[in-house]
Amino acid sequence: MDYSKAALEISEKFQGKIDVVSKVSVNSKEDLSIAYTPGVAEPCRQIAKNPDCAYKYTIKGRTIAVVTDGSAVLGLGNIGPTAGLPVMEGKSLLFKEFAGVDAFPICLDTQDVDEIVKTVKYLAPGFGGINLEDIAAPRCFEIEKKLQNEVDIPVFHDDQHGTAIVVAAAVMNSFRLKKKDLKDVVAVINGAGAAGTAIYQMLESIGIGEIRICDKEGLLKSVNPNTYPDKRISLQDSLVGADLFVGVSAPNLLKSCDIAKMNEKPVVFAMANPTPEIMPDEAKKGGAYIVGTGRSDFPNQINNVLVFPGFFKGLLQSRAKRVTKEMKLAAVQALANYIPESELNTENIIPDPLDKGVAKSVSEAVASQA
Amino acid sequence: MDYSKAALEISEKFQGKIDVVSKVSVNSKEDLSIAYTPGVAEPCRQIAKNPDCAYKYTIKGRTIAVVTDGSAVLGLGNIGPTAGLPVMEGKSLLFKEFAGVDAFPICLDTQDVDEIVKTVKYLAPGFGGINLEDIAAPRCFEIEKKLQNEVDIPVFHDDQHGTAIVVAAAVMNSFRLKKKDLKDVVAVINGAGAAGTAIYQMLESIGIGEIRICDKEGLLKSVNPNTYPDKRISLQDSLVGADLFVGVSAPNLLKSCDIAKMNEKPVVFAMANPTPEIMPDEAKKGGAYIVGTGRSDFPNQINNVLVFPGFFKGLLQSRAKRVTKEMKLAAVQALANYIPESELNTENIIPDPLDKGVAKSVSEAVASQA
Repeated sequence: MDYSKAALEISEKFQGKIDVVSKVSVNSKEDLSIAYTPGVAEPCRQIAKNPDCAYKYTIKGRTIAVVTDGSAVLGLGNIGPTAGLPVMEGKSLLFKEFAGVDAFPICLDTQDVDEIVKTVKYLAPGFGGINLEDIAAPRCFEIEKKLQNEVDIPVFHDDQHGTAIVVAAAVMNSFRLKKKDLKDVVAVINGAGAAGTAIYQMLESIGIGEIRICDKEGLLKSVNPNTYPDKRISLQDSLVGADLFVGVSAPNLLKSCDIAKMNEKPVVFAMANPTPEIMPDEAKKGGAYIVGTGRSDFPNQINNVLVFPGFFKGLLQSRAKRVTKEMKLAAVQALANYIPESELNTENIIPDPLDKGVAKSVSEAVASQA
Repeated sequence: MDYSKAALEISEKFQGKIDVVSKVSVNSKEDLSIAYTPGVAEPCRQIAKNPDCAYKYTIKGRTIAVVTDGSAVLGLGNIGPTAGLPVMEGKSLLFKEFAGVDAFPICLDTQDVDEIVKTVKYLAPGFGGINLEDIAAPRCFEIEKKLQNEVDIPVFHDDQHGTAIVVAAAVMNSFRLKKKDLKDVVAVINGAGAAGTAIYQMLESIGIGEIRICDKEGLLKSVNPNTYPDKRISLQDSLVGADLFVGVSAPNLLKSCDIAKMNEKPVVFAMANPTPEIMPDEAKKGGAYIVGTGRSDFPNQINNVLVFPGFFKGLLQSRAKRVTKEMKLAAVQALANYIPESELNTENIIPDPLDKGVAKSVSEAVASQA
C-alpha cells in the first residue's frame, strides 16, 4: 500500500485530520442562553473566584497542546511550523483515539528558545498539559526545562521521554527473557539527539550496567569521560562486548558482521524510520536474539504511541503539575508488565501499538505517582 | 429558567463545551501508517515545497483561533484568561454550530499589547483566521491593527466589528421601515469602548447624517470637535433631536421621559446585557417606534452570532488575508436584506439569531468582496 498517497488523499478529503466539535447543540433560545450569554457568565465567575474550577467547568482538565516549532519534523528536518502541522494533527488524533485526550496542534513561527518558552507560557491557561513535539536538540532540552519552571501544568517532550520509556520497557522485557541482570548489560546507543540522550538517561535509571553513546562521528567520550579514550572509536568498534544496540539514527548503518561483534545473542533495536539501522533478517544473520524496529511490518514495533496517550491521560487525571522521574519509571514498568511473563517471547517483548488497553495501564501507573 | 445553574451543569457534565475529535479512526496498522508515520510525511513534504498546500491538506483552511487576554469578559470585566475560557468555548461552539467553522479557544496569560501581538503572530501558522475576543479598549484597537500587519491571515475583533455590523443592519432596516434617509438621521451612541467606537465608524460608513457618542461622563466632544461645546452635556440632553439611540453601556440609564426628548417615533437599541439601558416597554412608553435589545426574550435581538460565524466562513472560503471595510459593509447589506421588504415590521427588523441560513448569506457576501 502506498501510504504517502493514502495520507495525501485523506488529508485532502477531510482538509486535515481533526475537528473541533460542539458538545451541546444550539437549536433554541434556551440553548443559546445556556451555551453562551447570559448563562456562560456563571462558570466564568466561579473560575474567577477559584482558578481550580477551570478543571471542573472547562476543557482545561482534559485538553493538551501539541507544540512544535517545526525544527525536527520526523526525519524531514527543519521544515518549519506550517509543514509540521500534518504531524501535529496526526499526533492529536492519536491522543484522542488511544486515550480520549483532547489535543490541539500549536505550530509556532519562532525557533528561539526564550520566545517559545514565553509563548507557551502565555498559552498555558487553556491547557492541562504541554506535549512538545519535533523540536530539534539541543534546543528541546532547554525549552522543556525552562518552560516547566514557568508553568504549573506538566510539560513532556515526547520525542525524548516517550521514546525512552518505550525503549526501556522493551529492554526490560528482553533481558527478562534472556534472564540477564540489567546491571550486567552493556548497551550501545547510536544517535545523541533528543531521543538518544533521553534513552541514555532512562537506561541509566533502570540500572543498565554500562551505556555507550555514539553520534555520526563514533563513540562520544563526553558521556562517560572516565571510561572512554580521547580518540573517537567507530560505532562498529564500540559494539564489541555489548549486549544491546539501540539505534535512533539513520538507515543501513550496520551489517550482520557488526552484530556478530556483540556479545552472544544480543538485543538489537534498530529504530531509524522508515529504514532501520539494520534490517531484522540481517541482524538475525549476525546472531541477534531479539530484534525490534519502528516498523509495523516486523515484530516488536517500538512505537511511542504506546506511551504518550496514556501518559498524558494519567497526568490529566491526577492534575499533575509536572512530570517526574518516578512517573516515567512507573510507565516503563506498566508497559513492560503489560505482557504476562508466560507470553513473553522473542517476537513479543512489547505490546502491540494498536492494543488500546495499554493506555489505561500507563495512565494508572502515571497517576499513581502524581 | 435559571441559565446560570444550567450553564454550570452542562459545563461540569461535559467538562467544557467543545471537543477535539479525530476524523479518521485508527484500528489497523494501515490506519496508523496513513494517519501518522510513515504516510504523514508526504503532506509535510508538499507543504514544505508550497506553503499554500496547508490550506488543502491541513485544518488551517477551516480553523480559527478565538483569542482573549481575559481583560473585558462579557460584563464581568478583567477576570483574566482562565476565567474567560468558558466564553471562548461558547464562542467556538457557536462558530461550529452556525457556520461549520472549527474554532479553538486561546486564552493568553498576558495583557501587554506587544506580547499579545507577538504571541498570536507565532501561533498563526496553524490557523486560517484570528477572532479577537473580550479584549479591553483601547488596547484592542492597537492589537488588532498591529497584529493584522504582522500576519497574512485575517484578524477580526468581534466585540467591535461583529457588533457594529449587526447594529448597522438593524439601523438600515429600521429607517427603511420608517422611510427616512440615513443622511437625515441623528444618532446617539452611549458607550465609547470597543463596541461603541466600532459602531460609530460603521454608522458613519453607512451614511448616518450625524452621530453623537457619549461615555459615562456624557457627550464626548472629541468625536466631532466642531459640533460640540467644550462643556460636557449629559446623555439625556444629547438625546434631544436624535432619531436613534444605540446603547452599549450599562443597565437602566434611561427613562421613558428621556426617550420622549428624542425626535418623533425614535429607534432605540438598548443592548446592555443582561439588563438594557431601558426596558422595551418603558422605551415604548416614551414613544419609541422600534426597540431592540441583546435579549432573547424581546423582539429584535441584536446578537452578533448573526455575524461572526458567517463572516469567518466567508473569510476562510475566500482565503482572505485581511478584513476590509468592503467586506464589513457587504455583511451589513446581506444581513439587512435577509429580511424581505414585505416581512419587515417593527418587531422584525433583524433576522432571528437562531436562523441558521443567515451565516450562508453573510459568508457569501464577505467572500464576494475578498
